[in-house]
Amino acid sequence: MTSPHAWPRLQGIAYGGDYNPEQWPREVWREDAALMREAGVNLVSVGIFSWGLIEVAEGEFDFSWLDELLDLMHENGIAVDLGTPTASPPAWFFANHPEARVIDREGRVMGFGSRGMASHSSPAYREAIVRYADTLAARYATHPAVVLWHVHNEYGVPVGEDHSPASVAAFRLWLQDRYGTLDALNSAWGTAFWGQHYTDWEHIDSPAIAPSVVNPAQRLDFARFTDHQLRACFVLERDAIRVHADQPITTNFMANQSWTTDLWAWAREVDVVSDDHYLWAADEDAHIGLAIAADLTRSVGGGKPWILMEHSTSAVNWQPRNIAKRPGEMKRNSLTHVGRGADGILFFQWRAGRSGAEKFHSAMLPHAGRESRVFREVVALGADLQRIGELQGSVVQADVAVLWDFESFWAQDLEWRPSEDVAHAAQVRHFYEQLWRDGITVDFALPGQDLSGYRLVVAPAQYMLSTADAENLERYVAGGGTLLVSFFSGIVDENDAVHVGGFAPGLRDALGLSVEEFLPLREGARHTVDWPGQGTFTADIWQEDLVLRGAVTVASHGGGPGEGEPAVTRNTHGEGVGWYVSTRLDAAGMAALFSDVYADAGIVPASRPEGLELMTRRGDDAIYLIAVNHGDDDASFVANGTDLLTGAEIAGTATVPPGGVAVIRSTD
Amino acid sequence: MTSPHAWPRLQGIAYGGDYNPEQWPREVWREDAALMREAGVNLVSVGIFSWGLIEVAEGEFDFSWLDELLDLMHENGIAVDLGTPTASPPAWFFANHPEARVIDREGRVMGFGSRGMASHSSPAYREAIVRYADTLAARYATHPAVVLWHVHNEYGVPVGEDHSPASVAAFRLWLQDRYGTLDALNSAWGTAFWGQHYTDWEHIDSPAIAPSVVNPAQRLDFARFTDHQLRACFVLERDAIRVHADQPITTNFMANQSWTTDLWAWAREVDVVSDDHYLWAADEDAHIGLAIAADLTRSVGGGKPWILMEHSTSAVNWQPRNIAKRPGEMKRNSLTHVGRGADGILFFQWRAGRSGAEKFHSAMLPHAGRESRVFREVVALGADLQRIGELQGSVVQADVAVLWDFESFWAQDLEWRPSEDVAHAAQVRHFYEQLWRDGITVDFALPGQDLSGYRLVVAPAQYMLSTADAENLERYVAGGGTLLVSFFSGIVDENDAVHVGGFAPGLRDALGLSVEEFLPLREGARHTVDWPGQGTFTADIWQEDLVLRGAVTVASHGGGPGEGEPAVTRNTHGEGVGWYVSTRLDAAGMAALFSDVYADAGIVPASRPEGLELMTRRGDDAIYLIAVNHGDDDASFVANGTDLLTGAEIAGTATVPPGGVAVIRSTD
Amino acid sequence: MTSPHAWPRLQGIAYGGDYNPEQWPREVWREDAALMREAGVNLVSVGIFSWGLIEVAEGEFDFSWLDELLDLMHENGIAVDLGTPTASPPAWFFANHPEARVIDREGRVMGFGSRGMASHSSPAYREAIVRYADTLAARYATHPAVVLWHVHNEYGVPVGEDHSPASVAAFRLWLQDRYGTLDALNSAWGTAFWGQHYTDWEHIDSPAIAPSVVNPAQRLDFARFTDHQLRACFVLERDAIRVHADQPITTNFMANQSWTTDLWAWAREVDVVSDDHYLWAADEDAHIGLAIAADLTRSVGGGKPWILMEHSTSAVNWQPRNIAKRPGEMKRNSLTHVGRGADGILFFQWRAGRSGAEKFHSAMLPHAGRESRVFREVVALGADLQRIGELQGSVVQADVAVLWDFESFWAQDLEWRPSEDVAHAAQVRHFYEQLWRDGITVDFALPGQDLSGYRLVVAPAQYMLSTADAENLERYVAGGGTLLVSFFSGIVDENDAVHVGGFAPGLRDALGLSVEEFLPLREGARHTVDWPGQGTFTADIWQEDLVLRGAVTVASHGGGPGEGEPAVTRNTHGEGVGWYVSTRLDAAGMAALFSDVYADAGIVPASRPEGLELMTRRGDDAIYLIAVNHGDDDASFVANGTDLLTGAEIAGTATVPPGGVAVIRSTD
Repeated sequence: MTSPHAWPRLQGIAYGGDYNPEQWPREVWREDAALMREAGVNLVSVGIFSWGLIEVAEGEFDFSWLDELLDLMHENGIAVDLGTPTASPPAWFFANHPEARVIDREGRVMGFGSRGMASHSSPAYREAIVRYADTLAARYATHPAVVLWHVHNEYGVPVGEDHSPASVAAFRLWLQDRYGTLDALNSAWGTAFWGQHYTDWEHIDSPAIAPSVVNPAQRLDFARFTDHQLRACFVLERDAIRVHADQPITTNFMANQSWTTDLWAWAREVDVVSDDHYLWAADEDAHIGLAIAADLTRSVGGGKPWILMEHSTSAVNWQPRNIAKRPGEMKRNSLTHVGRGADGILFFQWRAGRSGAEKFHSAMLPHAGRESRVFREVVALGADLQRIGELQGSVVQADVAVLWDFESFWAQDLEWRPSEDVAHAAQVRHFYEQLWRDGITVDFALPGQDLSGYRLVVAPAQYMLSTADAENLERYVAGGGTLLVSFFSGIVDENDAVHVGGFAPGLRDALGLSVEEFLPLREGARHTVDWPGQGTFTADIWQEDLVLRGAVTVASHGGGPGEGEPAVTRNTHGEGVGWYVSTRLDAAGMAALFSDVYADAGIVPASRPEGLELMTRRGDDAIYLIAVNHGDDDASFVANGTDLLTGAEIAGTATVPPGGVAVIRSTD
Repeated sequence: MTSPHAWPRLQGIAYGGDYNPEQWPREVWREDAALMREAGVNLVSVGIFSWGLIEVAEGEFDFSWLDELLDLMHENGIAVDLGTPTASPPAWFFANHPEARVIDREGRVMGFGSRGMASHSSPAYREAIVRYADTLAARYATHPAVVLWHVHNEYGVPVGEDHSPASVAAFRLWLQDRYGTLDALNSAWGTAFWGQHYTDWEHIDSPAIAPSVVNPAQRLDFARFTDHQLRACFVLERDAIRVHADQPITTNFMANQSWTTDLWAWAREVDVVSDDHYLWAADEDAHIGLAIAADLTRSVGGGKPWILMEHSTSAVNWQPRNIAKRPGEMKRNSLTHVGRGADGILFFQWRAGRSGAEKFHSAMLPHAGRESRVFREVVALGADLQRIGELQGSVVQADVAVLWDFESFWAQDLEWRPSEDVAHAAQVRHFYEQLWRDGITVDFALPGQDLSGYRLVVAPAQYMLSTADAENLERYVAGGGTLLVSFFSGIVDENDAVHVGGFAPGLRDALGLSVEEFLPLREGARHTVDWPGQGTFTADIWQEDLVLRGAVTVASHGGGPGEGEPAVTRNTHGEGVGWYVSTRLDAAGMAALFSDVYADAGIVPASRPEGLELMTRRGDDAIYLIAVNHGDDDASFVANGTDLLTGAEIAGTATVPPGGVAVIRSTD
Repeated sequence: MTSPHAWPRLQGIAYGGDYNPEQWPREVWREDAALMREAGVNLVSVGIFSWGLIEVAEGEFDFSWLDELLDLMHENGIAVDLGTPTASPPAWFFANHPEARVIDREGRVMGFGSRGMASHSSPAYREAIVRYADTLAARYATHPAVVLWHVHNEYGVPVGEDHSPASVAAFRLWLQDRYGTLDALNSAWGTAFWGQHYTDWEHIDSPAIAPSVVNPAQRLDFARFTDHQLRACFVLERDAIRVHADQPITTNFMANQSWTTDLWAWAREVDVVSDDHYLWAADEDAHIGLAIAADLTRSVGGGKPWILMEHSTSAVNWQPRNIAKRPGEMKRNSLTHVGRGADGILFFQWRAGRSGAEKFHSAMLPHAGRESRVFREVVALGADLQRIGELQGSVVQADVAVLWDFESFWAQDLEWRPSEDVAHAAQVRHFYEQLWRDGITVDFALPGQDLSGYRLVVAPAQYMLSTADAENLERYVAGGGTLLVSFFSGIVDENDAVHVGGFAPGLRDALGLSVEEFLPLREGARHTVDWPGQGTFTADIWQEDLVLRGAVTVASHGGGPGEGEPAVTRNTHGEGVGWYVSTRLDAAGMAALFSDVYADAGIVPASRPEGLELMTRRGDDAIYLIAVNHGDDDASFVANGTDLLTGAEIAGTATVPPGGVAVIRSTD
């Protein structure tokens, strides 16, 4: 379903943040409105956690303060993204419906007092959220401030799976719907193993704590079910709003920072894709994680512009050590999101809250107040975003796709895999990082989608790969594509069952090899990889016994259990080429690998200063270069046009100072 | 309430330990009495864990063995500290009252079989402890052996918080008493954040496990409530005893080794303060932790003499590696307690028990028996304590106060702080350690108390500071005091809410600065601090963005996010001086800092050999120097008088051998 | 009870594995039979996890597929080890009997979905297993394929202890049976400590989670009870089978890889001892752990031949990093088991399963299929085992016994011991490893058994030692034996109570010393041991204060708390010698220690190349040398005879290539 409105009624880049005025007295509201105007804020998200202050008792609504607030915002020219607070039901809800509380794998009942997350399978909860969404939308559908609806908050966080009786009952129905017969379920789950055969649907439980590891197919299906239940609740709310309202409806994703939701499916249900992203402070290259988030958000949305619904002006509060952003960093982060397709830059939150679990989370208006570095940078960023308003609607194009299938993540990260060193996300990051350093724009893609538009497709540890998806990859290569596959790919089917025929049988033709046995390495073990013509590299984590069936050995293991065997292979298949790498190469090895792969794919990475991140958006009438300098030196690159931030004309060479940014309307 | 008797009827220093004769046959009792006399024991604690052997069924008492024991002790001239065993109700109690079992945050019911800790909110438990205390006191109030009553054992250990239904119900009543209205509670807890607004007292639960972090103000109040419930049970027992008995009443604290009880409040309820202290074996400087414990115990008791109710003759049994004390160490530990105000030196326990969880805990009479190093040292210590009996009643005086507010500990150590490297206790230790090395006697103090008697007040990471307390510190400086404050001080009010006006607004005048933003460092990150005139030091964990408002930069960060900004500042305010340090300095940096701070405070640390701990007690007629040599060489210091342990006359210089002690009645 | 048949009706060495055809369609069964014949398989274990596929509803059996399978096996000349699947009751069982689910210490109910482990105290479970075993045995007692019965699977794994109400009720009955009176129980458990006195059997619970550490004697008894309940279930099944069938009955042990079962007691109940063993991948010397497993398995069986019921052809799946075996390693492992007494070499499992928790576990027929390194080596191993069939029935003899008492393990590894660095298993391994390196064949033994046949008895940290057992060791020494005892031996009696008279009083005469105090070392602390004539070594973990009472100091601590005190002592007692070592010596120190100890014991280790493992089996008519070369070079040793694997005649010197094996029928 697509809304009649694909984008909120806003000019230029949306700018603002979560606004929680219910934490503050009325005089602060007036001050906030004035400061928002000073900062160039044009959109605030309101009501995300306000259930109990609006539905003050079950079925009894008091909208007076919200009426007043929306009017205030509208008077000040600030649009509103109006939230349904269904991520946090009020205390009375749990008192009236104690059975709606979430129960975790260990049987622990999740109490009230933090975010009051409820069971998404609870009939009482579903009734309540529809009532709320309906009542809210009926009241504000025509309010002139409201330009966007914000359903719930970060579905699946902080808890996704629910083992309450309501959830177990719903799981049984979901399974009946999926499998039809118990024979089909027994077959899909492989219940003959460990004596798990089912003869009655009512005997099936959620995969809660058990004497040993629970059936992985059951756990995978429970992950699918969890995603389904969350999304079903979204759809209930969305449809209740749509009865009354025409504005676009969204919910804020968590891209690569939450794993409970299949964002490919979710993106089909929202009118506008929006995402929350927070830097991981312990990561010295956290901006690469940010780039992944932005590319993934854009990709699940099919390349359309999207909204960065939350990020932070400085430190967050929930990490072990919450590193403050340094001057210019918030701007760099924001412009990178823009460069990768965001047309809205919002923060959690407008004003730092004095109380509660997140009072040490930074805000647009920090505890230090108006006279502070952060607020000064917030004002400056608002002005910058106004200067680049013309980018709104322009798009990002990519020649390379990296596979990203949430179901494969769910399966791969279960217990009892060959090595706990092969987390899926880390493998994706490892490959993406080289592409980032080479300045290559990347889309993420599903293995089963049409990939013919890409010069290169990369599959890092794509553990789960259905036969159909493997055939799609084979066709892609045969048709002329270049495919780069890492170890531990194509191992299981959609039921987490090893493919008939061994490991990765579906990739044999494309890659020209078969995988006979995994050779995980001991903790800390490292071995060389000898690559004639490229040099000697280091690798770790994994090796494999391969049987080449047409592929050529490009590099070999210099030690370890697979000593002398192929580490990197290349295979021509049809019109294309299939590369395979059976270990985790170090950074230099990855650079060598990609340099050869690019050659096959016809990709020529531009030479650029290290630390310069260069992105391109294409509008109807112009091309925009967004440059972000993460380095400590001036960074120059070839450009012609106008720097929209400074108004400077660029002829031939643009230079961005250390930590700086540029947005150039290109005339090339 | 103060008892008519401020100290047990004993001459000199009390000496002895927990005595659990119920573990042994009668013939052992006779041997014990003889060996106690040999060791100079004059006080034993009896009955701490004897509930089930005295109240053999609910309401049915059998005192026969205890009668016999008290008579035996009295015949041998050994006084008794008679315990109520309410820390460990018997098996029949839990069988009769299963609802009185403690439930933890995760909903797990704590079973019987270890210490049978019960819910302190349970009506059945409260009825039972009053019945027991009343019956016991009625019987033994006039027994000539009994000189002290010992209620319960280590309140709050091993479990403090209780989430049983009785506790939740009591919590609601406590909250109604504290807040009066739900509006006041909603405001104090900041329930507008994350949608936690309450409309009914019955909707409030204990802060048990929830989907994410629970409201910190709720957790802080639950810590207060827990302390209150424990203390209310103490008061019930104390008052039941007082109806019958005149002897002083105590309960054994855990000073800096348990965090559940606000000892400032507890000290007001006991007649005599007593404390348990155990070395932390992994700490190579565990004697500094001991000094903190002793100073804190003395401080909460208002400087009056106190009893070391438990320590160990050698190893304990509950640490990962239980290091045995080396020859002389028990004596050094004991004399340090005396030097810091203890007038009683007792041990857990008299005779090593053969069975149970603590059989590897050392004792005065170890498993090896009478012919053992430990027992020989026990006998020698008994003789030494008799030699210094005249110290009884003398007092310790301090020029320096270090702030210690249990409520601030409770708040600071909750989840989601800016950095998990800033545990409150470690910061206090960091500052105390320099004072210890400089030989400065320290009191601990509440931030709101009269501080005018101190030359220097130190506030290490005093995270919670009410406006009134901050004003008290400001007045202290304005009146001529020297105040040294570390980073992360004065951040929140008594509800764990950030102060209006940002971080540490109440300290701005005294310190001449404001704190704009925290800059926690990454794990392991270290940077220099440049201190003109003092040198270059290293620091870690934390930096800050400061705005100076009158303060002068004394030292600066040489790197890190706050590079070039102030690391140490000094501000004259009124008649006094306020120092601020925005990072964690290494040991050399702390020495430099304090050397400057002492100069402002008019404190001149005496030059002494490294490792020599020198303490002073002042009696009505004499001054006593207690010297403990922790070093490997002879340590000499200026003294005149008589060494009470050896009888030697000291003229000009006293010398203590490595590992030795001296107690000098000074004629200076 | 001993079966009329001490060994299954098989010729030569048994070879095969678990076979789970219920996971596969019928056409695969035919292929399997053919490939088994190719591999020389003569025994497969069937039905281990098939409960729900045979008893399809409570009391309703369908044996059709099993009939077909057994016939197929028989037609192909493959014998069957027929299992009872009682380690994994079906879903309907738990639906019908929810109270039969296991509950863990924390009160968590173990759900269905992995291995469906049930409460072994549940009446419903016991009824069900007897019904199943009876029905199965009645049907197949005379089937010609069936040569062995395989009851249950790995008793005690993955869960042993059960805190369900049925278990608690059974525990009370077991205690009444053990102790007779509550007085006896109170005395044995030392309930006077911490106020745990019991006045009613019904007040006693399982040692579930409690506020602090639970009574260790109670935990020790619960471990005994757990073992008893598991074994009682085995006996129920065994006796039900025996009513119908004459074949030997076994259950697969876990030797040194599970700690829930007292294998000395279990071995008395089975007709044939069998064991499962898996390499611990993180251990670079995992083959030494394998040797311990094999020696322990043989020892508990009284030296009789035994069956290796499960090991792996390559990697397992349940370790953090599952290291694949390298070419030849499976053969070396298998021959080591043979060399240490195994007359059967079986694997988990025949064909790799596609689904479930263990799909990445290797198999005889791997996912890669017939054309794979693993299957080729499986075929070769089958042929090798046929070549050495004459070894069947020959035995292993040892001059050295290492004490191994499961009850002492249970007691020693409870909480609150003097140092967590003294795990019992690690100490046993430390001593065994030196014996292994010296090529000494080792039996494991109980401290109370007749030891007079051994030249040397080693007691590594034999924490629990009853007075009677200590007297047995004293008699052994007095009679001429050599005894080597490590620190932390002889500390407690069978109730985990410290012996009257201090530590190790029962060993004073044999060792000529007493232990006054433990001196555990801090983490990472290392000190020298000075051994005149042998050199200087390093040691860690532990020292002790010893009082010599006749023993001579052989080596001394060069530092640490016991500096200058004895580290190693020697004592002549009667006709024998008692050695004591009070620290953990490094490898060189252990070599020095044993070289002196061997001299006293009259043991002369043969000089052999490093890495060569040489084992001897003695038949009625021949002696067999089994040589396994773990090294990287050719290894030669003195031998005369015929290599059964190659047919080569050996005259004087045999040489085994790196990674190779030899089995020589010796003519010496």
